[in-house]
Amino acid sequence: MHGQVHGPEETLDPDDWATAEAISHRIVGDAVAYLRDVRDRAPWTDMPHSVRETFTEPLPSEPTDLAEVYQAVLDSLMPYPMGNIHPRFWSWYMGSSNLTGALGDFIAAVQGSNLGGGNHAAALMDQQVVGWCKQMLGFPASATGSLESGGSMANFIGLTVARNVKAGADIRELGVAALPRPMRYYASDQAHSCHRKAMEALGLGNQALRRIPSNDAMAIDIEALRRAIAEDRAAGLNPACIIGTAGTVNSGAIDDLEALANLAAEEGLWFHVDGCIGALVAIAPRNRNLVAGIERADSVALDPHKWLHAPFEVGCALVRDPQAQHKTFAVTPEYLEASPRGLAAAPWLHEYGLQTTKAFRALKVWMAIKEHGIEKFGRLIDQNIDQALYLSGLIDAEPGLERVAPTTINIVCFAIKIAGNDSEAAKRVNIEAMLRLQEEGIAVLSDTTVKGRHCLRVAITNHRTRRSDLDLLVRELVRLRSTLLVTESPTAPKS
Amino acid sequence: MHGQVHGPEETLDPDDWATAEAISHRIVGDAVAYLRDVRDRAPWTDMPHSVRETFTEPLPSEPTDLAEVYQAVLDSLMPYPMGNIHPRFWSWYMGSSNLTGALGDFIAAVQGSNLGGGNHAAALMDQQVVGWCKQMLGFPASATGSLESGGSMANFIGLTVARNVKAGADIRELGVAALPRPMRYYASDQAHSCHRKAMEALGLGNQALRRIPSNDAMAIDIEALRRAIAEDRAAGLNPACIIGTAGTVNSGAIDDLEALANLAAEEGLWFHVDGCIGALVAIAPRNRNLVAGIERADSVALDPHKWLHAPFEVGCALVRDPQAQHKTFAVTPEYLEASPRGLAAAPWLHEYGLQTTKAFRALKVWMAIKEHGIEKFGRLIDQNIDQALYLSGLIDAEPGLERVAPTTINIVCFAIKIAGNDSEAAKRVNIEAMLRLQEEGIAVLSDTTVKGRHCLRVAITNHRTRRSDLDLLVRELVRLRSTLLVTESPTAPKS
Ligand SMILES: Cc1ncc(COP(=O)(O)O)c(C=O)c1O
Ligand SMILES: Cc1ncc(COP(=O)(O)O)c(C=O)c1O
Repeated sequence: MHGQVHGPEETLDPDDWATAEAISHRIVGDAVAYLRDVRDRAPWTDMPHSVRETFTEPLPSEPTDLAEVYQAVLDSLMPYPMGNIHPRFWSWYMGSSNLTGALGDFIAAVQGSNLGGGNHAAALMDQQVVGWCKQMLGFPASATGSLESGGSMANFIGLTVARNVKAGADIRELGVAALPRPMRYYASDQAHSCHRKAMEALGLGNQALRRIPSNDAMAIDIEALRRAIAEDRAAGLNPACIIGTAGTVNSGAIDDLEALANLAAEEGLWFHVDGCIGALVAIAPRNRNLVAGIERADSVALDPHKWLHAPFEVGCALVRDPQAQHKTFAVTPEYLEASPRGLAAAPWLHEYGLQTTKAFRALKVWMAIKEHGIEKFGRLIDQNIDQALYLSGLIDAEPGLERVAPTTINIVCFAIKIAGNDSEAAKRVNIEAMLRLQEEGIAVLSDTTVKGRHCLRVAITNHRTRRSDLDLLVRELVRLRSTLLVTESPTAPKS
Repeated sequence: MHGQVHGPEETLDPDDWATAEAISHRIVGDAVAYLRDVRDRAPWTDMPHSVRETFTEPLPSEPTDLAEVYQAVLDSLMPYPMGNIHPRFWSWYMGSSNLTGALGDFIAAVQGSNLGGGNHAAALMDQQVVGWCKQMLGFPASATGSLESGGSMANFIGLTVARNVKAGADIRELGVAALPRPMRYYASDQAHSCHRKAMEALGLGNQALRRIPSNDAMAIDIEALRRAIAEDRAAGLNPACIIGTAGTVNSGAIDDLEALANLAAEEGLWFHVDGCIGALVAIAPRNRNLVAGIERADSVALDPHKWLHAPFEVGCALVRDPQAQHKTFAVTPEYLEASPRGLAAAPWLHEYGLQTTKAFRALKVWMAIKEHGIEKFGRLIDQNIDQALYLSGLIDAEPGLERVAPTTINIVCFAIKIAGNDSEAAKRVNIEAMLRLQEEGIAVLSDTTVKGRHCLRVAITNHRTRRSDLDLLVRELVRLRSTLLVTESPTAPKS
């Protein structure tokens, strides 16, 4: 039974390697210039209608020269980035990438290895980088870990292992319905939304995540947590896991990790730390004390694509118990069995999480850490924290601005003050100022609500930011405030 | 309160852009040569001890010149890949990458956008590529979708939406414990392990995934499925979801998708198709009939990093109902609210899955599809299927080899025959042949077990494979068989 054979065989490889190489060199030259000159451009630029239109084109059936494809990238994509590589991008929470990391992603894609596992160099490098993450946080070498698609999935790993270890039932086989008592997880009211998503996906439900009030420092109230655990135990529930946050997304607050570790130990709960923002403060020489206790966690999520500025994506889950992560996820079907020698003679990395195929995320982290040395990354973290304190000082000195949360690390929450106490008007003015900063190409901030108060938020996870950028920001905020307070008169439309 | 300011500010940007640019050009030149000359190398090479050692080096504290870092990559990483970019790699199931895709990953990392969402070009391109996936499968434009870290997570999305839609309870809030009746999912005994992992993570438990026997074609037995649903309903369970597989990992079998769609409709079940291997057969002009019915699924997982050869990772989840995916995952915390204009004036892509930060996975797919046109990808799929049929023919013509499962698409399961019926001896010979093919640098296959019989397995998701590579494979198998049958004598040690 020979198959029908139709014509000569085709490939995706270029017909003409020299032409492909020439375009590749152009791409690299342009990329270097794009990063080098990033400060000369606006952080964010709205797309004109004609550009938006190009993204509605249907599936192309016919080929196009790679040079032309690249021209479309130059025309429609490169001028309209999110902006997070820019020195004055401080919105949400993300790193600002770096050239070496981008080269790492390129080499990883060329080398092509699948990090589901196997006996090849990329798999060893993956485990080396996981080992480096343990070292950074003071975790024992016997802990396990995995590189994940980001902090959300790294947290998901920790929360899943916690569930399976603390279930008191064969939860893998029987599911949540078999739990003898409903499980409860605890986190502060400042916890990131990925925990809610995880609780829902895990079948425990949002209500199984009890939110504990935060104190004036925006950190979890330890006594309130202790009471909640006691209450739940009395009510016949199964208090299972404390989620501490090292660096909350709203204001950068850090829960008292030592106190949480103690409480978890006393009460026999799993202690997970969401360190997506702040775990890496552990490598910052002047601030590492802020996260003392993180090395006592049962599991930690950290995020090299934030403060190590690795290009997206790379998060990391660490689990102290040498067996628990594997016991939670490993399944070895007949088509993925290990062999005594050869390519399949190795531990399978996919047995530590939900993915089967995995990208080679380690290389971009490995190359940048080798190039700069981890000490420099530590200094850069201190630098961002210094900058946030510097900005806080500027704001405090400015009568038209006020801070609305304490600055713990690199996040500053503040508001433009308006006369009177019309909070709707204040929100309008602050949002408008935020939008004009974006639209005028000055800076990108975001907004949030802290203790019921709407505010602006600057998160400096950025190796390109300079203090002079923060001076500029404050000057522009003062200018915009004056402009907007004129508009925001009692007769202006309020929509 | 001004922060302590220590010395001049640092950055990860190069001190000297010209040097960084020169190294970048070297990297690109080497990468082009690496891909161009892939056929001249062995598909897989074991690492010497000295290379393994380099991956145990601890966290580097001091900097190293980028040129030196790159030299280490050239020495320790590039010669020891998994091998899946090689024309004679046919192990497990993965694509073989391509230069344009690798450039796409590089540009994505340089441009740096976070695909959690926002009003920027990459987010529009992401939705355009999702739209193209709908087009390829005949899904309505009103369906939603998301690019995921791979097929496992794309399946996870579908199974989660199915759970939440069919739960009959407020499962997001209350969890699986609130289900009025235990849910049951159905898949054939050939379903991929990621479904088991998903059922466990979702809190439904492995036992909630009922495995239905497969028929001689290795596809799900529809009548057995119908009976199982009836039985479960009679037992008070909640039959909720049928998982059809378009291309099983063991043998490439395709479930009768029309029959499954009909049954799901009759019984009121969710119909999910795991199309990680075979969904894209829908674009192959000579074979698309094999997956007829896929366009009727409620959700589909497909995997551009397999048969579109995009560098890892990119999977895609599609959900027919315009609301269900968003209703399953959306959470909008205060720090991620949309704004009326500016960067946050856009739908948030993170509301369609578990990740918050998302890599810009679309570009590598977009560039390669634009360059080649989708028709070529369709022809390449037909080509791989032709090649598998060609190999099947060669095997059938060879008295020392036999096929052990029907060849439906691009996967061939076969075994080296030995005299007598000592199945342990047969397994030993087949594994040894597989390992020698790897170790001698000839080809990479994997092994599996089909209907209780151990066998070798060739999965041709490879745009570089030529029929002559398959001729070579069969010649080498015949040679190895002779060699090994001598060793495998009744007196040889059996361990
Ligand atoms: C505290 C915290 N946890 C988790 C996450 C989620 O991380 P990722 O965006 O990498 O998924 C974030 C994101 O900003 C965060 O700030
Ligand atoms: C049928 C099937 N489903 C799902 C998967 C998982 O896809 P991924 O490896 O992209 O996670 C695979 C992987 O080979 C597969 O063959």
